[in-house]
Amino acid sequence: MQIGLIGLGKMGGNMAERLRAGGHEVIGYDRDPNSARTVASLQELVAALDAPRAVWVMVPSGAPTRATIGDLAEVLSEGDLIIDGGNSRYTDDQLHGAMLEKKGIQYLDVGVSGGIWGITEGYALMVGGTADAVAQVQPVFDTLKPVGAGGFVHAGPVGAGHFVKMVHNGIEYGMMQAYGEGYELLQAVDLVPDPDAVMASWQQGTVIKSWLLDLLVRALAADPGLEDIRGYAQDSGEGRWTIEAAIENAVPLPVITAALFARFSSRQTESPAMKVVAALRNQFGGHAVGKEGSSDAVPVS
Amino acid sequence: MQIGLIGLGKMGGNMAERLRAGGHEVIGYDRDPNSARTVASLQELVAALDAPRAVWVMVPSGAPTRATIGDLAEVLSEGDLIIDGGNSRYTDDQLHGAMLEKKGIQYLDVGVSGGIWGITEGYALMVGGTADAVAQVQPVFDTLKPVGAGGFVHAGPVGAGHFVKMVHNGIEYGMMQAYGEGYELLQAVDLVPDPDAVMASWQQGTVIKSWLLDLLVRALAADPGLEDIRGYAQDSGEGRWTIEAAIENAVPLPVITAALFARFSSRQTESPAMKVVAALRNQFGGHAVGKEGSSDAVPVS
Repeated sequence: MQIGLIGLGKMGGNMAERLRAGGHEVIGYDRDPNSARTVASLQELVAALDAPRAVWVMVPSGAPTRATIGDLAEVLSEGDLIIDGGNSRYTDDQLHGAMLEKKGIQYLDVGVSGGIWGITEGYALMVGGTADAVAQVQPVFDTLKPVGAGGFVHAGPVGAGHFVKMVHNGIEYGMMQAYGEGYELLQAVDLVPDPDAVMASWQQGTVIKSWLLDLLVRALAADPGLEDIRGYAQDSGEGRWTIEAAIENAVPLPVITAALFARFSSRQTESPAMKVVAALRNQFGGHAVGKEGSSDAVPVS
Repeated sequence: MQIGLIGLGKMGGNMAERLRAGGHEVIGYDRDPNSARTVASLQELVAALDAPRAVWVMVPSGAPTRATIGDLAEVLSEGDLIIDGGNSRYTDDQLHGAMLEKKGIQYLDVGVSGGIWGITEGYALMVGGTADAVAQVQPVFDTLKPVGAGGFVHAGPVGAGHFVKMVHNGIEYGMMQAYGEGYELLQAVDLVPDPDAVMASWQQGTVIKSWLLDLLVRALAADPGLEDIRGYAQDSGEGRWTIEAAIENAVPLPVITAALFARFSSRQTESPAMKVVAALRNQFGGHAVGKEGSSDAVPVS
């Protein structure tokens, strides 16, 4: 089928390629004139598409996505369909869905997983919206998703797609941290001289074999001991939103929360909380307190 | 090759079957006269094996394993080899290794993963001991392990096999809890009417696809919503030992620890800690306090 695609970055560009390989006509637009865009403006995009139009938005989440959807709402017509395939927060989807409904424009939110592997392996798609809207672009979903029974779910009404993708990412935080902690413990003991070989052996026959483990073993093969990687991790929002959704629904998430907080700790060069702990140990026990910048600043006990 | 196998329960019995299918001669012994044992005593087992003997111990960890290895030490001879394939603590291995070394008996500790799937898929093996001892029973390892490059690692000296298996299980705790938390959050919201379908869709194309997820989807297919399962989990020791090893080596394991503690909480019918919290809320704020056994015992805020 014919589809507009806004945002031809790493994800959008790869998806356009997979869609075209699947026989779809993709009209691509990107702000960047140096991109492989088909048209040079939203107006041209709308003109190039047959009504009812389907436009897939694949731009960074937050302000860029909100601005793009707002702009599209001005140029699209009743019966058209906007698909947000970015990493938007599900509450944004609910606002967008309500705003577009007033104009008779349909809306789907799609959580997309698969990263740089998606172009060959297919993208897992988690979709929120009406059954009618889903049916309208099902051929596109069928091409983007992996071959097989899995990799696609119509999760619920508008917002459900990104909610589910958010939870997926929360689980991912917990799993990554679990592997990380295990690896750190192996590295800490003399008893296990080659933790990298252990991780590699776990790829078969174990309970913890997974795609994430496969990726970790690839990383270890390229960089034994991960010596070239600094031990800190950014977060792109979904982990925080998962915890916020858990708080709103009073659901205990001790592991996912601990994984998120471990990332926060990893980004600190100095921990104010630990300054407090060190100061109090000094107050009641006279324990040594390190001074900032001193080389003997880390007391052992 | 020829090998003695003590313990013909679910794990040992399946391993014997896989070994025999692989062309090995397995002399099996079990305390239970109704088991499929080849011989009726340790003395008969020793007599039936050609020296130097290799005896694989596959009995419950802790006291049963310690007793079996103690008994074997009395009846085996210099040059023989004992393999502990159970879930022993690595510190037990170090005691066993030292004790047996004095008698000239070799010792290997082998962490075995794969559960009931091992008989067909192969068992992941994590081995601790000398290279000589490993080489002596490599044909047995080659038959038990999965086909392919992974699923076997000579992790280090005596103790390393079970240490690595312990860390594997610690990671498993974190992963299982991460999936569990994600599922609970999906169940908590109206936005996602069918969390089971979401989990099933995640088996393909996602970052969190794994064997554990496959098993969970099987469980959900058999028991939608897991309505027939009570929400508590036992633990068999490795999680605790992982945390203890982390404490000994001052390695932070926030996620694995949270996963272990979540299991402890799940087994409480009443939380003394929460009694304290409820009592204190009542003291300073006059918040309602439930009485044990009362039906309105759970204040909302």
